[in-house]
Amino acid sequence: MTTTTVNEEHQTGPGPTSQDVEMMSLALDLAAGASMETAPNPRVGCVLVKDGQIIGRGCTQKVGQAHAEVMALRDAASQGHAVQGATAYVTLEPCSHYGRTPPCANALIEAGVARVVAALEDPNPLVAGRGFAMLREAGIDVLSGVLAQRASELNIGFLHRMRTGKPWVRLKMAASMDGFTALPNRQSQWITDAAAREDGHHWRARADAILTGIGTVLADNPQMNIRYPEYTSRFQPRKIVVDSRLRIHGMPNRARLLESGRVLLVHAQTRDETLDVDCCECKVEQDCEIQYLHLPNPDGTHVDLSRLMQELGREQINEMHVEAGAQLSGALLAAGLVDELLLYLAPKFLGSGRTMFDLPGLQHVEQAQQWTMSDLRQVGNAVRVILRA
Amino acid sequence: MTTTTVNEEHQTGPGPTSQDVEMMSLALDLAAGASMETAPNPRVGCVLVKDGQIIGRGCTQKVGQAHAEVMALRDAASQGHAVQGATAYVTLEPCSHYGRTPPCANALIEAGVARVVAALEDPNPLVAGRGFAMLREAGIDVLSGVLAQRASELNIGFLHRMRTGKPWVRLKMAASMDGFTALPNRQSQWITDAAAREDGHHWRARADAILTGIGTVLADNPQMNIRYPEYTSRFQPRKIVVDSRLRIHGMPNRARLLESGRVLLVHAQTRDETLDVDCCECKVEQDCEIQYLHLPNPDGTHVDLSRLMQELGREQINEMHVEAGAQLSGALLAAGLVDELLLYLAPKFLGSGRTMFDLPGLQHVEQAQQWTMSDLRQVGNAVRVILRA
Repeated sequence: MTTTTVNEEHQTGPGPTSQDVEMMSLALDLAAGASMETAPNPRVGCVLVKDGQIIGRGCTQKVGQAHAEVMALRDAASQGHAVQGATAYVTLEPCSHYGRTPPCANALIEAGVARVVAALEDPNPLVAGRGFAMLREAGIDVLSGVLAQRASELNIGFLHRMRTGKPWVRLKMAASMDGFTALPNRQSQWITDAAAREDGHHWRARADAILTGIGTVLADNPQMNIRYPEYTSRFQPRKIVVDSRLRIHGMPNRARLLESGRVLLVHAQTRDETLDVDCCECKVEQDCEIQYLHLPNPDGTHVDLSRLMQELGREQINEMHVEAGAQLSGALLAAGLVDELLLYLAPKFLGSGRTMFDLPGLQHVEQAQQWTMSDLRQVGNAVRVILRA
Repeated sequence: MTTTTVNEEHQTGPGPTSQDVEMMSLALDLAAGASMETAPNPRVGCVLVKDGQIIGRGCTQKVGQAHAEVMALRDAASQGHAVQGATAYVTLEPCSHYGRTPPCANALIEAGVARVVAALEDPNPLVAGRGFAMLREAGIDVLSGVLAQRASELNIGFLHRMRTGKPWVRLKMAASMDGFTALPNRQSQWITDAAAREDGHHWRARADAILTGIGTVLADNPQMNIRYPEYTSRFQPRKIVVDSRLRIHGMPNRARLLESGRVLLVHAQTRDETLDVDCCECKVEQDCEIQYLHLPNPDGTHVDLSRLMQELGREQINEMHVEAGAQLSGALLAAGLVDELLLYLAPKFLGSGRTMFDLPGLQHVEQAQQWTMSDLRQVGNAVRVILRA
């Protein structure tokens, strides 16, 4: 993950020095420390270096506020440093367009930086090399591709959405090592230990939205929220429930996931609005809200999952975390809508029970999709494996 | 695996020096290089060091021939080195009894070594500290426990058999990451890739015996041999088939596993010897042999697997490799007869098919046996995980 790869396309000077790698690593640390409230913007870090000294640092602020480059320039100014002739290390190509804020490329040019080292080109069609071009036209040396892999991982959802229009879909599943997520009687506590569950919760916390299916809601009645003190209601990922026939309305008690936060119920039936659940009962949450999205597939029986991903991309969801049962998980897998599988396999054997994915039958093993292992480690007592499509 | 642990019980001098660790590591390399034909004896290495110089090296020879210590002493003599005052590094406590060869402890005493550093005490009841005691009585400094973990792994089968009377049972299983070993139509080629299959074959090659069930024989008709050029018939692990009703006799063609090597058919029925398969058809193999073992469980329907392990221990099988289907594998697991699970989990999902283990139904997940992860790595495209009971 720390390999230095240099994209020669944007390289106008020599390759990266050891200082370049070290400073980019620092900029990535700043980016990683940025609030999740930057969403839907990427989390970016910037370090300004002059005569071998760090003169300014910054990271992206909440959406609508200053970007990393501007924060670093302000930091340098507040300390009385002249930025003229400095090198700016940025974890993503400086933006070139007027969005919620003015272009960062302009700010760097006006400040008189001599060199810009970036980790990645911004695939945002509004930028896509134009930031680098603006800098170069202003006579600034540009080097891109330093610690690109690490920078990609940090904003994998944003980058994926910019490239495909859809969120990065990470599906989490915990099972015994013989592939069962619960006993035949549905009992599943606890297949994985506390360490693996905690690890899974951290992945959930970095997502913009959490998706589940009505089957899981009816069976487990999950809260679908992040139970860390630093996550106030404002930071809670959006809750999305695939509920073709809006069975959530028929639950004997109000579903717990409706008690707080923003919920999107995705369904396939013509809706009788008089039956809608609303959020008037949840008085404590400021931005509590229940929305409906009617997305039937061609035969009208189920939700069109592919269109759902396009819709969520349009709503600027970068990373989506899926925790669902075998039916919805299998449907997403079979439809090629899962970008990453986050699997926890616990060292026990149940022999029978609920399987991980309901999938269409195969005649040959070769028909099964081959995944690529992107990470493998032990977490608690479990194997954690991350697969990518 | 390289942690230095020192067993204080046998420590008469100071703890291990860095030279001790380095020389023991070399002795372990010699042990690992010993022929598999040492079985049922352990593979041992010995290094003799005097004035900081290595003056002799040796490892266990074929069963009935010289042990590591004697080989190292001969090596030193052949080079004209006087062993008087040297340190002997041995990966296992020198033997103290007259077996097929005279005791190695005597040989070291007679040669005048001043110090013996060992990795492990020999749990063989005929030794079990007596080798160390003999050395100490002769005024030799003894240090034991250097690189003990690595030494244990090398002879795990021998050590386990000495402690329990039974072989170390390693069960190999390859499955998709959702726990299926084959499609519902039994098709299973190839769930894992060539690298994982090759790795599995190496584990099979280090075993003294390979166990399977008649179900696998009927379905897959495996050869159950080691297909490496260095494995002549003499080195081939013994083939053991659990075949309660001797259904192997009813196969339309002779089972391929009967074509070469030593085969043990373990059954539960009263045998009509006129129906026995014999080995007269396999003319190329010198030690080809088919034996029968009648080991019914109390109700006479199945093989008593627990007694089978005791029998195999008595027959000096150190490491046993199991490659069987869900039924026999599950029965072994449920009976607590598996010491180590060698699992290859390939990054694909079949959705349905043949499960890994047929196990008695559970009411609660906590009833499932909890295994400990002893190794985790990627092999080829698969996760390889080694679990221990």
